[in-house]
This record gives sequence, C-alpha cells and structure tokens, in this order.
Amino acid sequence: MGTLHGVGLGPGAQDLMSVRADRLVRGAGHVAFFRKAGRKGQARAIVDGMLHADAVEFPMEYPVTTEIPVADPRYNDMLSAFYTDCTAHLRGLVEAGADVVVLCEGDPFFYGSFMHLYTRLKDVIPVEVVPAITGMSGAWTATGQPITWGDDVLTVLMATLPEDVLAEKIAATDALVVMKIGRNLPKLKRALRAAGRLEDAWMVEYAQMPRQRVQRLVDADEVTPYFSIVLIHGQGRRP
Amino acid sequence: MGTLHGVGLGPGAQDLMSVRADRLVRGAGHVAFFRKAGRKGQARAIVDGMLHADAVEFPMEYPVTTEIPVADPRYNDMLSAFYTDCTAHLRGLVEAGADVVVLCEGDPFFYGSFMHLYTRLKDVIPVEVVPAITGMSGAWTATGQPITWGDDVLTVLMATLPEDVLAEKIAATDALVVMKIGRNLPKLKRALRAAGRLEDAWMVEYAQMPRQRVQRLVDADEVTPYFSIVLIHGQGRRP
Repeated sequence: MGTLHGVGLGPGAQDLMSVRADRLVRGAGHVAFFRKAGRKGQARAIVDGMLHADAVEFPMEYPVTTEIPVADPRYNDMLSAFYTDCTAHLRGLVEAGADVVVLCEGDPFFYGSFMHLYTRLKDVIPVEVVPAITGMSGAWTATGQPITWGDDVLTVLMATLPEDVLAEKIAATDALVVMKIGRNLPKLKRALRAAGRLEDAWMVEYAQMPRQRVQRLVDADEVTPYFSIVLIHGQGRRP
Repeated sequence: MGTLHGVGLGPGAQDLMSVRADRLVRGAGHVAFFRKAGRKGQARAIVDGMLHADAVEFPMEYPVTTEIPVADPRYNDMLSAFYTDCTAHLRGLVEAGADVVVLCEGDPFFYGSFMHLYTRLKDVIPVEVVPAITGMSGAWTATGQPITWGDDVLTVLMATLPEDVLAEKIAATDALVVMKIGRNLPKLKRALRAAGRLEDAWMVEYAQMPRQRVQRLVDADEVTPYFSIVLIHGQGRRP
C-alpha cells in the first residue's frame, strides 16, 4: 500500500513551497491535479520544471464550472460523481503500491477541492496532508502592509455570498480577506460601499507570481480573475 | 547597504519552512529574534542546527510580558522604547552592509512583533518579507479536518478580546480560529458556551512540533500555553 499526499503548493512562487512539499513534488512518481477542461491547470503550472521525467500525470478535469448554477441540484450531483471517479482512480494507484502527490494551490484544508478527495479516502487508504502558505498570505505580503495587529478581528469571506451578508460581515470586522472574486466584483464593491469600507480596500491579482499586480480597489479594473484577492488591513494596537 | 529580511518560519517543523526561508536562514550572517527574558525563544528554537557556525545572533528580549496590564500607558511606552532600541541596532547593521534575517514565528504580517520593526524601518533601509505557513494552518492540518468548505465564513479572534465580543463573533461565524489563549481560556470557554459552540471546538497545542496535542476542547486541561489554538471547523457545501 502506498500513500496519498495532499501537498499544498502555496501562493505560486516555487521557492514559497515548503521544504517538505518541494521534496515530495520532485520525488513524485505519480502526480494528480485539478484543472478546467482545456487548461493547463494552475497547480500543474506552479510545479513546471520540478517533476521527475518519468512522473505519471493524472489531470482531474472539472465537469462543470460556471454553466450550471451552484443552487441547481445537478451541480452537486455532477461534482459528486466526478469526485467519486477521481477517488476510484487514486485509490487504485495507492492500493497497487504507488505514492501519489495531489498538487493543491494554497493550503489543502483552506477552501479548494482537495478536501472532497480527502473525506472520501482518509479512512480507506493512507493519506498525508502538507499545509502551505495560503494565497491570502501571499496577497497581504504583496501589499507591503501587515494584515492584522494586536487584537484585530480578521474575517475571511467568499465573494459568492449574498450582497447583504457581505455588507454586514464587512462592517463588523477590523481586517478583511475576500476570495473567489471574478464576476462577483461589482456585487462585492457595492457591499464594501454599503459598509463604508470601499476606500480602504486593496485588490491583489496573481499574488507572488510574475504577473502580480497590487492596486487600491477603487483604481482597479472591473474585470479580474477568479483567484484575485481583495483585502482590508487591520489598524490595531501598534506600540 | 544590506537588506533586512523578515523571514516567516511557519508553525514549527523545520521542513514546513519555505524553500526561500530555508535558504535565507542557512546563509544568514546575522540573525535577530524576539524572546522573553530568560528563555531561548521559540523562533530561535525552530532553527536549531540550521544556522551557520559564524552567524551573529541578536536576541531582542521583551521588556514586559504579563506584569503590566495592556491598558496601562506604561505598557505601550515601554514596548515603543524597546522597538526603537531594536530598530536602531538593526539599522546600524544594515547600513554597515550586513544582510540581517529576523526570525519570525508563523507569518510575519499576521499578528506577531515583526511588524513593529517593519513599520519603523521600511522607509529607511531595504526590507524584504517572506510569507510563511501560519500557526493556524499548522493547527487545522493537525486536526485532520478541513477548516473551510464552499462559502464558509472564517473568523480569526484573539482570546484577549472581551467575553461579550468573543461570544457575539463566535455565534456569527461558520469556521473559527482563536489565538492568544493561555490564561484567557476560561473566558473563551464561557464565550463558546454562550454562543452554543463549545461542543464543536478543538484545542491544538504545539501544532506541527514534537509535543503536538489535539483534543476536543471539552476534554482539554484548563492550563494551556499562550500559543495554543482553538478552532471550529466549517460545515459548508461538500458535494
């Protein structure tokens, strides 16, 4: 029996991978990673040039992305069947004695897709998880300002939430991180304005990658990638 | 002119340091780190065995810890004078051409003390910051359960906050991380009970270190280190 390793790759720069992740990725005989159909996949792109020449790659292509609304029961059914297929293949490899590295953007237990494999496999085969630098750490470091001081409260929100929920949570926190931006940006901006915090917000695109861009949100374009991060720095006690 | 590097060391295991941090720590001619008087210092302990034999060490010993209440103006004055002294020494080294690595537990911009040096020096000498795996990532990985799913809201709180604030914030979030526990534990438990969430809470001591201990909070001792982390896992959408 081998082991399935859920390996967090961090925000994107190869040398921000942990020493443990670097070792596992370079030594991997099998790697698996999620991607949209027709794309290379962000996780796979991060490890470019690091994989062993003989590494066997298993791309896991999402069956749905934006075509079906999340609230539609078919969305959940299709994703569930997809994860079941992926886990059957991974389980087969590990039961045949292979060690398999699942490449995960950011930290494997902080949002993302790996956890859907993890919960299906953790009681069936050996699974190890390697934590990583989150995308949000990469983003606040890119702004050159600390995110939280002293007793600051930090709230992490997904921009997919309803506008009134966003506005209420944004008004009630000191420091803020918002992810899953993309086409939710106009809604998020309205919520920030309603909470009186729009002027304090920063937009970070491609944190810790060559295309990194950091701007005040009021100066940013209306079109931004899904993986952009919006944040507001806390202003807590600073002796 | 040299450079001051604020290097995040991550939660504690040496191989959870980033490749960039590992390289900087091993190559450092000068290292600085915070510690309580009479202690070795947690950041210094993490890099045991990694430093160059000729590395010059600059321990920065906090003048106050728990003796003076945080609300007392003397607390802020003493800490401010301390940070001014530290920055004067670090500035002198860097202006004389040295590269200096400041060893930071966790991520340098996520709570902690490094940011008090950073704000005093960033416009005076070259300063670079290396993000890291946070202590909370180390803690939730240790529990073997993902912290956030789908659209979960994550709230990060310091247990030093007033009990009513803690209870209100805990009741309003999906996933929770609480830090700075120590002698605030009885207050935190009352707040969790008031919010109806005590049974869902986990206590992680010494995450990703040899002494790591993970328990349900209701089973944990009343005495726990300041750096313990309490958390509640989100229960969001999982296809």
